[in-house]
Amino acid sequence: MTSSETDDRKIRIAVLGASGYTGSETLRLAARHPNMAIVALTADRRAGQALGDVFPHLGGLDLPVLTRVEDVDWSDIDAAFCCLPHATTQEVVAGLPDHLKVIDLSADFRLTDPAVYAEWYGHDHLAPHLQGDAVYGLTEWARDDLPSARIAACPGCYPTGALLPLLPLVKDGLIDTQGIIVDAKSGVTGAGRAPKEAMLYGEVAEGVNAYGIAHHRHTPEMEQELSAVADEALRVTFTPHLIPINRGILSTIYVTLANGADVAAMRASLLAAYQDAPFVRVVPQGTAPATRHVRGSNHCLIGVFEDRVPGRAIIISAIDNLVKGSSGQAVQNFNLMFGLPETAGLQQEPLFP
Amino acid sequence: MTSSETDDRKIRIAVLGASGYTGSETLRLAARHPNMAIVALTADRRAGQALGDVFPHLGGLDLPVLTRVEDVDWSDIDAAFCCLPHATTQEVVAGLPDHLKVIDLSADFRLTDPAVYAEWYGHDHLAPHLQGDAVYGLTEWARDDLPSARIAACPGCYPTGALLPLLPLVKDGLIDTQGIIVDAKSGVTGAGRAPKEAMLYGEVAEGVNAYGIAHHRHTPEMEQELSAVADEALRVTFTPHLIPINRGILSTIYVTLANGADVAAMRASLLAAYQDAPFVRVVPQGTAPATRHVRGSNHCLIGVFEDRVPGRAIIISAIDNLVKGSSGQAVQNFNLMFGLPETAGLQQEPLFP
Amino acid sequence: MTSSETDDRKIRIAVLGASGYTGSETLRLAARHPNMAIVALTADRRAGQALGDVFPHLGGLDLPVLTRVEDVDWSDIDAAFCCLPHATTQEVVAGLPDHLKVIDLSADFRLTDPAVYAEWYGHDHLAPHLQGDAVYGLTEWARDDLPSARIAACPGCYPTGALLPLLPLVKDGLIDTQGIIVDAKSGVTGAGRAPKEAMLYGEVAEGVNAYGIAHHRHTPEMEQELSAVADEALRVTFTPHLIPINRGILSTIYVTLANGADVAAMRASLLAAYQDAPFVRVVPQGTAPATRHVRGSNHCLIGVFEDRVPGRAIIISAIDNLVKGSSGQAVQNFNLMFGLPETAGLQQEPLFP
Amino acid sequence: MTSSETDDRKIRIAVLGASGYTGSETLRLAARHPNMAIVALTADRRAGQALGDVFPHLGGLDLPVLTRVEDVDWSDIDAAFCCLPHATTQEVVAGLPDHLKVIDLSADFRLTDPAVYAEWYGHDHLAPHLQGDAVYGLTEWARDDLPSARIAACPGCYPTGALLPLLPLVKDGLIDTQGIIVDAKSGVTGAGRAPKEAMLYGEVAEGVNAYGIAHHRHTPEMEQELSAVADEALRVTFTPHLIPINRGILSTIYVTLANGADVAAMRASLLAAYQDAPFVRVVPQGTAPATRHVRGSNHCLIGVFEDRVPGRAIIISAIDNLVKGSSGQAVQNFNLMFGLPETAGLQQEPLFP
Repeated sequence: MTSSETDDRKIRIAVLGASGYTGSETLRLAARHPNMAIVALTADRRAGQALGDVFPHLGGLDLPVLTRVEDVDWSDIDAAFCCLPHATTQEVVAGLPDHLKVIDLSADFRLTDPAVYAEWYGHDHLAPHLQGDAVYGLTEWARDDLPSARIAACPGCYPTGALLPLLPLVKDGLIDTQGIIVDAKSGVTGAGRAPKEAMLYGEVAEGVNAYGIAHHRHTPEMEQELSAVADEALRVTFTPHLIPINRGILSTIYVTLANGADVAAMRASLLAAYQDAPFVRVVPQGTAPATRHVRGSNHCLIGVFEDRVPGRAIIISAIDNLVKGSSGQAVQNFNLMFGLPETAGLQQEPLFP
Repeated sequence: MTSSETDDRKIRIAVLGASGYTGSETLRLAARHPNMAIVALTADRRAGQALGDVFPHLGGLDLPVLTRVEDVDWSDIDAAFCCLPHATTQEVVAGLPDHLKVIDLSADFRLTDPAVYAEWYGHDHLAPHLQGDAVYGLTEWARDDLPSARIAACPGCYPTGALLPLLPLVKDGLIDTQGIIVDAKSGVTGAGRAPKEAMLYGEVAEGVNAYGIAHHRHTPEMEQELSAVADEALRVTFTPHLIPINRGILSTIYVTLANGADVAAMRASLLAAYQDAPFVRVVPQGTAPATRHVRGSNHCLIGVFEDRVPGRAIIISAIDNLVKGSSGQAVQNFNLMFGLPETAGLQQEPLFP
Repeated sequence: MTSSETDDRKIRIAVLGASGYTGSETLRLAARHPNMAIVALTADRRAGQALGDVFPHLGGLDLPVLTRVEDVDWSDIDAAFCCLPHATTQEVVAGLPDHLKVIDLSADFRLTDPAVYAEWYGHDHLAPHLQGDAVYGLTEWARDDLPSARIAACPGCYPTGALLPLLPLVKDGLIDTQGIIVDAKSGVTGAGRAPKEAMLYGEVAEGVNAYGIAHHRHTPEMEQELSAVADEALRVTFTPHLIPINRGILSTIYVTLANGADVAAMRASLLAAYQDAPFVRVVPQGTAPATRHVRGSNHCLIGVFEDRVPGRAIIISAIDNLVKGSSGQAVQNFNLMFGLPETAGLQQEPLFP
Repeated sequence: MTSSETDDRKIRIAVLGASGYTGSETLRLAARHPNMAIVALTADRRAGQALGDVFPHLGGLDLPVLTRVEDVDWSDIDAAFCCLPHATTQEVVAGLPDHLKVIDLSADFRLTDPAVYAEWYGHDHLAPHLQGDAVYGLTEWARDDLPSARIAACPGCYPTGALLPLLPLVKDGLIDTQGIIVDAKSGVTGAGRAPKEAMLYGEVAEGVNAYGIAHHRHTPEMEQELSAVADEALRVTFTPHLIPINRGILSTIYVTLANGADVAAMRASLLAAYQDAPFVRVVPQGTAPATRHVRGSNHCLIGVFEDRVPGRAIIISAIDNLVKGSSGQAVQNFNLMFGLPETAGLQQEPLFP
């Protein structure tokens, strides 16, 4: 494979579900990606409209008009980014021609066990035969599998923020696999663009609350991936919180050290795991990652702290939920699936303030 | 003593440090308190100015001009609210005449052990002889001691949010005293009004970060009070976070259930502990407390949730850091110190949105 | 009539449309009003629910369950606060028994000319016979008419902010009646609680935009009231803007001075007009009113500034759109309609920060 | 001159004042600019620190350590971006070697008349001999002059937002030159990063206020540039407002139409003026520009609206004050000064939400 920055292939992509936040964010990145040509956009309820009517910030781009999914001519398309709601996705993907690579931003292909899927989503999966074609696309942990994958199941935003710091530590046996607690604080865009009372400015601003306590659907993803590297079933305590920001997830993770481990070993493990990862950065000792320092970028910042309680540690990670937690990671996965440099189209610095 | 709503005494108060946020919040409440007459305001750097120059929102009130502390005539004053920075406070309070009751909103009289104070604040206490005169003013747990107290040491905002739910549970033996984790999310006013780069709008908005990880000065307060009811020394894992809201602290607390305990018993314990508390409310099962629902009020909301991990539970509390976490609790303590109804001057409903 | 603070009448009120923001704000004030007993709450789509399910911040109050309008027993009710959408209101009010006093927060009874109503609202008024019963309830300008009024048509939030400073100046002939420009900046709660994409946190935060440019429905209200005092028809340029705050309207008003007038005369006119108004305050010269200094209060702040362009002036007013711009003014009107002190139930200081 | 996208020159730049918001924003853009090499960063008070200590969001870049201005070796540097405070700038620039091109983001070289400078800034200019070397860098209006300029005096953020829509209209004689009113709403970053009480989160959030009413220092810039195209002296009414957003300026501009002119002619004038401007976009009729749709980009959106008052019109423009209003325009000017494509390094789409 000859991936290089000067690769001038134009891979023809469709973005399905272009009228939501993950859709528009995918387009923001795709529009400046050196190897993408955007040839189809779908948004069933907005079919016939220009993208600029739905997202004025992208109104200056020369893009196709929005269409319905069934009106897309797939013959000339190489890849589809699926930014559709869960359940809808599995039906749509099942109907796509085989030659297409699919980068799915929904939850539909993340859980490999159909029983677990049914338990958390309340119905049987509609395309179980495709679950085997999907690779769980936490990019840094899927680099070997993505080039041959047909479907990249991009992780949820919360699992991305939790797994990046936890996977190396569990794999290296530095923390207890039982009793991991993930307390996450998220911006509103994770909830999408559908109008709901709870997401109105008046309801969100100047406040904070937990939600989905002990039963959020991102929990089984974390457990699936952590159990795999731990080689034993484990359960995670996970509490998501809604805070008044547009973008960003801060995950504060409480762990018990394994016998003999310490915070220095944890830092060393993380530094080793991500030494070649262009988007994951272990921050200097004593520094606390903040979501404002990753806003608009594909970065993940990780910090490790000794707890006051002996034998315990605190890990903090920060991502932008719409980039590394969603559309940015999708592009990163696309890059690997097509043999492009991992960073293609993703090198913007964070926007601060 | 016959305390009643029709008590028409006017207790003469001074507010020291009236140019900060806890000072102005104390004045907001004091101005409409049926039993307070505000007779002196101090703010050393703003001496000579009208309060309306410093806090235009209070510009319509007829209040004394700001003076320096040393220019106050104490002879005719019954009580002082001290809204001064820590360390300054102990010097000022040491110089106040004995007849004054002192409601101190700083950290100076909260820690009863001089060695613990010195460890966390970096210097010996300057008025250790007064520490015995002080009652730790978490009102609901100090009702018996406040009437005879000379100094009410109002708790920190974080300890208030953590202790109200934890004290009954520890006292009733329902949770493990080891391994308590308090993950708190706070608005900016807890940091005061002094200009600091980290507190600029541009630095705070659209972001979240942890700070003081494993060494925040509110930790020993929590440990002191919890150890007292547990009758054993315990340590708490405490992580404060800064979020872009003006007011409010949400505390998400992770605990291990004691043998035989369950979430129903926890709820029963909390309901019993606060059945006569006018400001503490256990929310309906399944409801998550939110800071927006206590904004501007002296309320504390508490919810209890079963964790997905067997044997563990999650407790959530919400307060307004400037009211129940500071000035409101100070007024509540004042009420008890002077034999007034606990709710006098504190019955505003929350401001939402 | 002997109106006094010790009046202990309990006037029995109903709040119609209690599940919206003006409804909840009316309840916040009513709950602590010394002369109100809340005996009925309606919210058609939430009928059967407790208010605490709809507005958790009011969950601690002992209030009636929400019902449908048609299920209210009006026989024992003295006054109704109508917090319903426009058009619905006129139908509901037309069906209320005559003995009830109505304080209407909608737009339905503000415009006295049926033709103007039809032009701006797109349909004929459904209860034109009641328009004669209504008093335009800009309280400071309706004190003489309110005691005998059956219906108080509370002004829109924007007209309240614009008319309070403009009416005295037009009446005193100090400004040109032509060419008045009102550039207003409003928080989101003016748009209500109905879920709309444009009001999502993600759409509102971190941005500002104008809307309803040159055709906002609050324009004819301003023109009606200003024309009345000017004794000639006039038109106003009015541009509302949406900014990311919950509460508050700042009105920046550009005017041409009348011959011989100056800013000093304007200040004198305003001071004279509002010398006995408990909620309107002309700020000190050189001070700029800010919405944060009226938040949660019934205050209106007004400042006047000489423009750099000779012969022109700039007037700035600040109100809380949910209080003086809506529910607070409604309570103020109620007070006058029932011979109570104008300030009853409205003396909270602003909440800052 | 052969300017092309494949130009691979690396122009060596210094950024002076790299610890402020315009400094960091310049670096965000410079870091990904295809023709820039960042060889020196200065920040006197932070000299010796890494940029990542001052701006963690840029901590992943490989950049020089911060130094003092006097420690820079200028011999090998081609261009300097001056992000220094006003007054300081003129002294520093006066000391720079002649071979350097200077892109100045301060106010120091914007006003061409020394008397006007002295009137508004309160002291005589310290380098009046350089004022003749400076070109007022409103890029779209300076394209002919920038290639030969030694100093680009980048306009203030407010003048940029006001002049882009007004210059064509005044030049084409479509609007009255007297009575132009600019009502601008700005985010906080325009005030810089220096800690000031008024810029604390607690003071800014949930509020709006006007400031610098009738005497803001950006006024004479607007008047200078408008007077030049009008060929007569004119005065502008300008009122800036602070709103709680990080980035963005919305300018609502009220004008009187010239005889015979109408809104259609205004739109045509603007479309013609900016048909080849890559960053200025006249939005579709009836659409209101919003700052959220330009955030993080170098775009300027302009809309024109017929007023309800005959003979008057309303113009609205939106920019990101840190990009088109500051660092982005600086880079755009740099591009033209060095014969690069105007869009080099500036093609990011806006970040929304």
